[in-house]
Amino acid sequence: MAALASVLDRIDAEQDAAIRRLLNLLRIKSISTDLAYKEECRRAAEWLVADLTSIGFYASVRDTNGHPMVVAHHEGPAGAPHVLFYGHYDVQPVDPLELWTHDPFEPAVREGKDGHAIITGRGSSDDKGQLMTFVEACRAYKAVGGMLPCKVTIFLEGEEESGSPSMQAFLDANADELKADIALVCDTSQRDATTPAICVGLRGLVSEEVTIHAASRDLHSGSYGGAAANPIHVLAKTLGDMHDNEGRVTIPRFYDGVAETPRQTLDSWDALGETAESFLGPVGLSVPSGEKGRSILELVWARPTAEINGISGGYTGDGFKTVIPSHAFAKVSFRLVDKQDPVTIRSAFRKFVQERLPPDCRVEFKPHGNSPAIQLSHDRPYLTAAKSALAEEWAKEPIIKAMGGSIPVVGEFKTYLGLDALLVGFALPDDCIHSPNEKYNVSSFHKGQRSWARILDVLAKTQC
Amino acid sequence: MAALASVLDRIDAEQDAAIRRLLNLLRIKSISTDLAYKEECRRAAEWLVADLTSIGFYASVRDTNGHPMVVAHHEGPAGAPHVLFYGHYDVQPVDPLELWTHDPFEPAVREGKDGHAIITGRGSSDDKGQLMTFVEACRAYKAVGGMLPCKVTIFLEGEEESGSPSMQAFLDANADELKADIALVCDTSQRDATTPAICVGLRGLVSEEVTIHAASRDLHSGSYGGAAANPIHVLAKTLGDMHDNEGRVTIPRFYDGVAETPRQTLDSWDALGETAESFLGPVGLSVPSGEKGRSILELVWARPTAEINGISGGYTGDGFKTVIPSHAFAKVSFRLVDKQDPVTIRSAFRKFVQERLPPDCRVEFKPHGNSPAIQLSHDRPYLTAAKSALAEEWAKEPIIKAMGGSIPVVGEFKTYLGLDALLVGFALPDDCIHSPNEKYNVSSFHKGQRSWARILDVLAKTQC
Repeated sequence: MAALASVLDRIDAEQDAAIRRLLNLLRIKSISTDLAYKEECRRAAEWLVADLTSIGFYASVRDTNGHPMVVAHHEGPAGAPHVLFYGHYDVQPVDPLELWTHDPFEPAVREGKDGHAIITGRGSSDDKGQLMTFVEACRAYKAVGGMLPCKVTIFLEGEEESGSPSMQAFLDANADELKADIALVCDTSQRDATTPAICVGLRGLVSEEVTIHAASRDLHSGSYGGAAANPIHVLAKTLGDMHDNEGRVTIPRFYDGVAETPRQTLDSWDALGETAESFLGPVGLSVPSGEKGRSILELVWARPTAEINGISGGYTGDGFKTVIPSHAFAKVSFRLVDKQDPVTIRSAFRKFVQERLPPDCRVEFKPHGNSPAIQLSHDRPYLTAAKSALAEEWAKEPIIKAMGGSIPVVGEFKTYLGLDALLVGFALPDDCIHSPNEKYNVSSFHKGQRSWARILDVLAKTQC
Repeated sequence: MAALASVLDRIDAEQDAAIRRLLNLLRIKSISTDLAYKEECRRAAEWLVADLTSIGFYASVRDTNGHPMVVAHHEGPAGAPHVLFYGHYDVQPVDPLELWTHDPFEPAVREGKDGHAIITGRGSSDDKGQLMTFVEACRAYKAVGGMLPCKVTIFLEGEEESGSPSMQAFLDANADELKADIALVCDTSQRDATTPAICVGLRGLVSEEVTIHAASRDLHSGSYGGAAANPIHVLAKTLGDMHDNEGRVTIPRFYDGVAETPRQTLDSWDALGETAESFLGPVGLSVPSGEKGRSILELVWARPTAEINGISGGYTGDGFKTVIPSHAFAKVSFRLVDKQDPVTIRSAFRKFVQERLPPDCRVEFKPHGNSPAIQLSHDRPYLTAAKSALAEEWAKEPIIKAMGGSIPVVGEFKTYLGLDALLVGFALPDDCIHSPNEKYNVSSFHKGQRSWARILDVLAKTQC
């Protein structure tokens, strides 16, 4: 078995080549939610299979009804644990394109705002850069000693940014092949550029598209205004009613299953020193918009939300058109916490809309994502091992945090494979994931690889 | 002077050629609100100048800061009145294009739903088809007797569908040239396919674009949901608040200057027999959406409205994107009646939005159209003359109606030229103006020409 120090040296020496590989992956436009990029998604999967094969994995592209999965296996020493590493090769859409300083699919190493070197481009952080930290750690182990310290299965998805519609069926059909001792997930962020973090709580996600239909065609607002139902009004009124003046969601039964966060947990979060100003300041805001009387970290880590992610209706081009459109739609999502049930939330929202539907209007719902909140164990041996590995690399104890985002696959690993997950990621709050000008610090990429090398080293000696 | 009967015969004999001319005009994509079609607007103006010149008008394209005007003069017999005919050659945008049965700019005579021949295409009714009814009547007079019965100025605008930004300055600068005894406007509709109408009331229009800005960039709704202000929420909440449950507009001072419609007028409208079902049924609706307890015709002819004509924010493509956008916007318009003041309405709306603006958000307003409601005289001699001419052509008394739409130029003719207007049009309620599948009945086009020939004939003998 390669000595850890040699592996870390190898990672350091390999950085230029590692960045070149990542840039190649970033050039592939694997936007999963837009069917125009279907072939690009497959290309990304094929690129990963080729790269993993070159390292020595037994890797394959696995078809689904949507974008393919990548599954790659590598043996480990007898008695060492079997880890299942998860990441996703698909990326978010890039609009509004005009706000990008550089082409999102012409990635490069550039100088960031604070003078640090950054890798720019869509997916540089979420999640191509992050998943390649693990792949590069494996490559270094293989280069130095020809082996990996654990048995490793790498499982990469191509539909994470579009609600993972194929995941459950795939896990169900391939459970025997994918079962392991522990799942490793690299899709989360650090506390800040010098403080690593392990995430033990994730909000769930229910997302839904709602379309209000009224007249059978677009109408002239002069001829029909005051007489014909306007579906944009119905949508605005209904969605405007979703919150009260205290920032609480007004949908009946929405808070069923939401317990108050324990005082001890809230105190530990308060100790992190985050304020509304420090959290919101970097994006030009300062006043929390959600429920009043709660700390900023409680709002994003432990409270549920109802959010309009997109809305469209009528004429939205240049100039003006006095139209009453025949329909209007919105994309709405709910972040869930604790024991909120996704099925209940979706039907409560639908009922809320239907009860506000005026005569003459018709509503159409289209379900998207659907996952409950997740609370991971705080005290399993693998967590203690990972904490020590990260503390070694960063010369600082990792914080144990929750996360406002949703990684539904973590719950599905538990359901279908019986697996607990270790969530370690190296993204930073200013990485602009899902936004224009996404980036990943070169140092995040580098120290991420070293962190995984250390985690694999300690996990090899741990009873997961 | 040509005998009216010969002119009408000439019109009848000329219909195939008249339709071919209209189809040529309809092929020009003169969408004024979209700058991509700037050259097409000029082409339409040039086409009209060439056609009017061929008839014997002294016609010219007149530049403005926007799209050009067309002005054409023709002398009349000594002592005959001078009429100023107004129409507009610009058209509405054509989206959503996929709902058109035929290409909006490949016009043709086709069979309509009820078996009648129709001319299909954008602008076929509003307003190219309508304005050509007058041009064809003039052509027939010239062909038969070489003269026109009145002195005629034809004044055609290219910005009616985008708020007429150049009109006031143009009227102000060219008042002496454009002054006449009476304005004739052909941009309104009939009661039904067999009943002509003269319009004596028009609602005003204030239109405004409102953009809510929040964070300095798009945010991930997982990371920031519950903490960061969502501009779509602010927009939905604010615009959703614009109406109460009785359908009344809640903006303070909105109803200043709105008197109740006289009982006598309401009774005359009731006598027309229009019901909510008959008015809304053809567009798939049946329940009036506006103020409760008022008749359908009062709602569209005599009551003010607040209408959202377009809204957009966040991700609206295929699939889902869990984004909190940095901004969202809506296009909002108000139909005004009676003495409502456009300036007061605009500032009342802006105040209404600003008062609801949460901390951290910023609002931006962009004004579009701005015109008061118009009430024309019921008893001037030109009106009596036009009624008799229409009654002759249609063998039925025209109805005297109001209109829910706005034709700001009618008020501007009064202000800048001191001119009253006669509003006669041949559009039908099912012409789908501003919508996909706009059409103009071949019979509307034909009898419109005959109607103008008769109106010119009686106006020639009238002290306007």
